[in-house]
Amino acid sequence: MVLSPAVHEPPGPPRTAERCLESARTLSTPTTGGLPQVHTWLRDRARANEFTTTPVPFAELDGWSFAPDTGDLVHRSGGFFRIRGMRVTGAAGPVPQWSQPVIDQPEIGVLGMLAKRIDGVLCLLVQAKMEPGNINMLQLSPTVQATRSNFLRLHGGAATRYLEYFTEPGRGRVLADVLHSEQGGSFYRKRNRNIIVETDEDVPLHDDYRWLTVGQLHALLREDNMVNMDARTVLACLPWDTTEAGPDDAAAQDTTDVQSWLNDAKSRSSLVSRLVPLTEVEHWRRTERAIGHEDDRYFQVIGTAVRATNREVGAWSQPLIAPRGRGVVAFLVSRARGRTEVLVQARAEGGTPDTVELGPTVQCVPANFHGLPDRHQPRYLDLVRDAAPGRVLYDTLLSEEGGRFYQAENRYLLVEADDEVRDAATPPGFRWIPLRQLHTLVRHSGYLNVEARSLLACLQQSA
Amino acid sequence: MVLSPAVHEPPGPPRTAERCLESARTLSTPTTGGLPQVHTWLRDRARANEFTTTPVPFAELDGWSFAPDTGDLVHRSGGFFRIRGMRVTGAAGPVPQWSQPVIDQPEIGVLGMLAKRIDGVLCLLVQAKMEPGNINMLQLSPTVQATRSNFLRLHGGAATRYLEYFTEPGRGRVLADVLHSEQGGSFYRKRNRNIIVETDEDVPLHDDYRWLTVGQLHALLREDNMVNMDARTVLACLPWDTTEAGPDDAAAQDTTDVQSWLNDAKSRSSLVSRLVPLTEVEHWRRTERAIGHEDDRYFQVIGTAVRATNREVGAWSQPLIAPRGRGVVAFLVSRARGRTEVLVQARAEGGTPDTVELGPTVQCVPANFHGLPDRHQPRYLDLVRDAAPGRVLYDTLLSEEGGRFYQAENRYLLVEADDEVRDAATPPGFRWIPLRQLHTLVRHSGYLNVEARSLLACLQQSA
Repeated sequence: MVLSPAVHEPPGPPRTAERCLESARTLSTPTTGGLPQVHTWLRDRARANEFTTTPVPFAELDGWSFAPDTGDLVHRSGGFFRIRGMRVTGAAGPVPQWSQPVIDQPEIGVLGMLAKRIDGVLCLLVQAKMEPGNINMLQLSPTVQATRSNFLRLHGGAATRYLEYFTEPGRGRVLADVLHSEQGGSFYRKRNRNIIVETDEDVPLHDDYRWLTVGQLHALLREDNMVNMDARTVLACLPWDTTEAGPDDAAAQDTTDVQSWLNDAKSRSSLVSRLVPLTEVEHWRRTERAIGHEDDRYFQVIGTAVRATNREVGAWSQPLIAPRGRGVVAFLVSRARGRTEVLVQARAEGGTPDTVELGPTVQCVPANFHGLPDRHQPRYLDLVRDAAPGRVLYDTLLSEEGGRFYQAENRYLLVEADDEVRDAATPPGFRWIPLRQLHTLVRHSGYLNVEARSLLACLQQSA
Repeated sequence: MVLSPAVHEPPGPPRTAERCLESARTLSTPTTGGLPQVHTWLRDRARANEFTTTPVPFAELDGWSFAPDTGDLVHRSGGFFRIRGMRVTGAAGPVPQWSQPVIDQPEIGVLGMLAKRIDGVLCLLVQAKMEPGNINMLQLSPTVQATRSNFLRLHGGAATRYLEYFTEPGRGRVLADVLHSEQGGSFYRKRNRNIIVETDEDVPLHDDYRWLTVGQLHALLREDNMVNMDARTVLACLPWDTTEAGPDDAAAQDTTDVQSWLNDAKSRSSLVSRLVPLTEVEHWRRTERAIGHEDDRYFQVIGTAVRATNREVGAWSQPLIAPRGRGVVAFLVSRARGRTEVLVQARAEGGTPDTVELGPTVQCVPANFHGLPDRHQPRYLDLVRDAAPGRVLYDTLLSEEGGRFYQAENRYLLVEADDEVRDAATPPGFRWIPLRQLHTLVRHSGYLNVEARSLLACLQQSA
């Protein structure tokens, strides 16, 4: 799956674009080594550390219990997160109102990527991180990936490595710093701080961490379940021209029309979502081992026991969200009008902080739509799933965050639209947007949802 | 109070800045007439229409009542807004937690300003609007100022004039479209859509509406209680160079550092606010005529009966928020470093959608701090209140939104800081920011609070 350079940033000042492509394509420096060395390192880290996740009954969760008054699943510290209920009303579509379990975590986590120029090439310090929900145990994560509860050491364990670069002012040059949402179908108004800080300091290197070039990370994005969700959303925020701290030339692109279209969708949406006690959630059943929907759709909340040798604490237990099917997340892409454009959807989700954000063309778990009439099937799903191989620019299995999701693997696709699709009238709620405008908007909160940001990172992959 | 041109946008491409200053300073066109004609029109409109607001006991409010289960003050339609309770925990400062009444209105209102070039000068269509809480009955408001309940005609009255320019796509060129917050001390996560649409159409002119040049509006901003809050926040979103739809050259200014500083404040804040039933609010008492704090600070919720001849319906009643004292809202301004900078505060408020936004240097009701020790007095309050006259660039009484606030009049100030203040270390939570960066940030949600946006509009006033 190779994206031609034309997918990137035509037109633009050639010098800037060239410099950027060069930086993004650099697959190694004398210090980072080539991709084979990266794989060797990952195998070593997997061997050096022990990490097991075992689903257990809720009663065996250490420190977690169902609150007597609300039925919420809470930690005895009052920290980390809670499984509560969310009631959604006024939604568009076939189901105008529902209630469901949701993760409530009213604190801002840090997703911090430390950057440094090594041999003149911008490199990022990634972590070989094990998370309980990872389908393959170990994935590449940002330098720091920590909730506030974690870095305040609520768990009583070790300090978060490299955190000081992101919490102490003046430790480096900030290349990006944006609060972004997470999955609006599972989190209630959660947001994380996506930060990239460039340092000139000598950075002590722990065995679980390694400098990779941006080009290496983009190449690794084409491997199944390799680059985790947090690394993808931070990568999406990287200024295109990484040789300058400022907004790249994409910022000169006017986004007023897109903002207006999105605000129109927001103001038309009558969706209201509120937290409710978990006991008030309807059509969901709690057993000893799972909270699941009576139709066995959507997801289950399960309990897990975790053992690790390379985390802040050696053993813990926690709830996780286990999806009931594999999702499809896709952008239709067009280069028909002399610039790269993607087809976005104004997508309302119950847990999205401001209700509606720009999402991918397709974002669904097809199994959830089994048995529903054709008119309720997701738009463009067939088109991306059945695309001719020549039109598929990217097709990789990527995981959602393994600290909250259990083996949540989705198929991410970039599919080139044919002229007929590109020229057809877009249905309500869909719009073609130049890639450059997405690059401008991703520097601010509230525009791109997490799935769209993942795809944006994949769109930037080169070589 | 004259702002020298240097306050505006030095440095910058001279042609753009000159064009802009020229447009902003134009005080009349053959069609709009001069300022005296504007005042004559306003007097005529006041005479032509009858409008009275009378405080009444809650029991006499038509259609409003206290819900038996929650004690919330609600309308029988379920629409408009509700007075509910808000519980705030984890706040910084002397009072870490409290509960209070709050306006809950989970819908997006439209603040729409229609623009048109008349005789080559950009003009805005303003409305002489009467609102029940206005201290002087009539103030200048945007072309459209309507909640969704209003423009869906939940009140059973007449349609909102000129609404179609803002709700039908393609009726004009969108110059700005941003969702902005309202007062975080009184509203729970309320936001309005600030839109400016430029039209080429012939616009039928109703008696209560009039085209004003941007220069006229800026001049009128220097009159007490003349330009209402909604008009001010929309004006703040006007691109500086109104001859181009795109972001002005201020967008080229890098805002990454400011974003990072604000996100740091957001992630350090542990403030969490949640809606609760009004009956659960502590230290507030409800009488027949008011809900007030037991110390008689902050504000009261009162009921009012309204009669009007020029609104969608002729008579109605509604609750209003009546502040217990006059506020001070001020920016310290500096031109010491060759560009205009203002001292902003990262301000956490319970009802702010994402908790922390950039606020003015000073934003308080001094009476609320009577009797508190010196260390709890608002920073910089003395400095702006006791500034030498030569340093006061702007000093005008402006009202908060008369549709929700009863006679809420605040003193808005722009005060030039002396070199000593400018060069001193800023206390935590304060930061000098170039005006150009505020112009960039105000084009997106979640950065500037409503008081800072008002001051930004005042900073743009010229001549």
